Amino acid sequence: MTTPVTPAVPAPGALPRLLVLDAAPRPRLGRLIGRAEVSYADAATLADRLPDADVLLVWDFHSDAVRRAWPGEGPRPRWVHTASAGVDHLLGPELAASDTVVTNARGVFDEPIAEYVAALVLALAKDLPRTLELQRERTWRHRETRRVAGGRAVVVGTGPIGRAIARTLKALGVTTALVGRAARSGVHGPEDLDRLLSRADWVVAAAPLTEATRGMFDARRFGVMQPSAHFVNVGRGPLVVEEALAATLRARGIAGAALDVVAHEPLTADSPLWDLPGLIVSPHMSGDTVGWRDELGAQFVELFERWSAGDPLPNVVDKTRGYVPGH
Amino acid sequence: MTTPVTPAVPAPGALPRLLVLDAAPRPRLGRLIGRAEVSYADAATLADRLPDADVLLVWDFHSDAVRRAWPGEGPRPRWVHTASAGVDHLLGPELAASDTVVTNARGVFDEPIAEYVAALVLALAKDLPRTLELQRERTWRHRETRRVAGGRAVVVGTGPIGRAIARTLKALGVTTALVGRAARSGVHGPEDLDRLLSRADWVVAAAPLTEATRGMFDARRFGVMQPSAHFVNVGRGPLVVEEALAATLRARGIAGAALDVVAHEPLTADSPLWDLPGLIVSPHMSGDTVGWRDELGAQFVELFERWSAGDPLPNVVDKTRGYVPGH
Repeated sequence: MTTPVTPAVPAPGALPRLLVLDAAPRPRLGRLIGRAEVSYADAATLADRLPDADVLLVWDFHSDAVRRAWPGEGPRPRWVHTASAGVDHLLGPELAASDTVVTNARGVFDEPIAEYVAALVLALAKDLPRTLELQRERTWRHRETRRVAGGRAVVVGTGPIGRAIARTLKALGVTTALVGRAARSGVHGPEDLDRLLSRADWVVAAAPLTEATRGMFDARRFGVMQPSAHFVNVGRGPLVVEEALAATLRARGIAGAALDVVAHEPLTADSPLWDLPGLIVSPHMSGDTVGWRDELGAQFVELFERWSAGDPLPNVVDKTRGYVPGH
Repeated sequence: MTTPVTPAVPAPGALPRLLVLDAAPRPRLGRLIGRAEVSYADAATLADRLPDADVLLVWDFHSDAVRRAWPGEGPRPRWVHTASAGVDHLLGPELAASDTVVTNARGVFDEPIAEYVAALVLALAKDLPRTLELQRERTWRHRETRRVAGGRAVVVGTGPIGRAIARTLKALGVTTALVGRAARSGVHGPEDLDRLLSRADWVVAAAPLTEATRGMFDARRFGVMQPSAHFVNVGRGPLVVEEALAATLRARGIAGAALDVVAHEPLTADSPLWDLPGLIVSPHMSGDTVGWRDELGAQFVELFERWSAGDPLPNVVDKTRGYVPGH
């Protein structure tokens, strides 16, 4: 899928030193016993430990410790792998400018996130939050709901996650347009976005966070959407200007929204996002189906084995763009 | 799709007398002006009015007034159409034994109900009720959820609704088996049901209510299901022995359930069903998407025009079976 790149491998005889930015539960790295010298760091110790690592596994993908520690003293790992699709939490300018190869967890989250988006779209169409509210009030109140089939969706983000979302929505009968950084076969460019937004029933954000996408869903873009439209974000929180979304929902400028990601995670109890009208908030879990951590660990082990053998690595991030380029 | 049947038409010159068992909002019958003598009855007046009707439109499909009024005195309409898929509310033994033709709203609800089932299945898989609960508590708590794709479903009911549900679940990657009254191509017979239930992640009831299906989901059948299974009923409430489902959910015998129909509708505030663990209750709305009443009215007008022209009627109910037979 992506152009493979081969970072340098340690000299024969020396075990590669693998440093893990730790989080509980730890990755299952049993297959690397005798093939790597594994040690663990946390956000506090990472800066001291970085110079002694050949490879860094960013297992704590909620942390921005790499971004903070990287500019420090001494040598740096030649390869950094993050157990996440997004790389915005680690990709500071120094790492971006370095020779270090960065890889991500491309492929693990695609289908789970697509199902999660389908769940949100259908729940919003069928007014499920209100049904559960009425159930709590022990009230039987019939309402009419929406069809999903026959509607129109716009998915912003053309990586494997955006494409899986588009496939799933199409399977449900939704006419779906993909929007990427540039027009190409099967993909609309940014110049089409406003026109597509103005006709969409469903707008799904599944883009990486880059300087081009930060804050792209702002008051103007929410203003272009139909009052009957719904907005879903499964990408990164800062794609959305949250104050603008809040104002839009309060004014019933769109019919509803669902955020699985927010600008500041975890969302604190005093956030106004918790009880906005028509908004579903979930805790950044769209891709995390049972067994996901094992899959992430197994994916890293596989990449490590390739790297040790001197084979090219897949899933290499274009550090100037901030994501793994596709087709 | 179904064998057409032609009920007798009034003598030339006489306008057919159409009686509507009324409910608000009334059907749009403007296209029948000058072509039918339309009058309205309610549950209290139906028995008195039945002898003067050639055709009865059961618009109040929640009422069992037809079942109660039919055995009374005098002539009876030659054709009864119900604006519903199920006919159990009107099909008493006297109507079943009569020459009167009964038609239903076959076709209107199929795809909407299939979407609703997909919404329930995905909401249960993604733990959406708990997410909304945590949102109300302003609590950010990550959980792992389930994949839908790769799972197994059993859909009981092989009419157009059951088939649409199966198509939609298959589109989401779920291996889906249909169970009907007898084994045939693409359909399992009742002899396979227990084996299929014992392996299913999702069990969906979409059968008509007949003497063969009443109470079919009982303690024994819930006992066969896996502790990780979910049960969804969009057919008729009495397919389920509700006490058995309640006991199963309380004992965590299955993981969860969703009932869009219950034995006694509307469900009263004192029902224990409202707060069973893992149960979603919705008010018999699975097929009722925006515009559904207009579709039901238009379908009846189309059937009336066929009948007036002496053409055969589709959607004719087999009154001994209690549904419109299919393939």
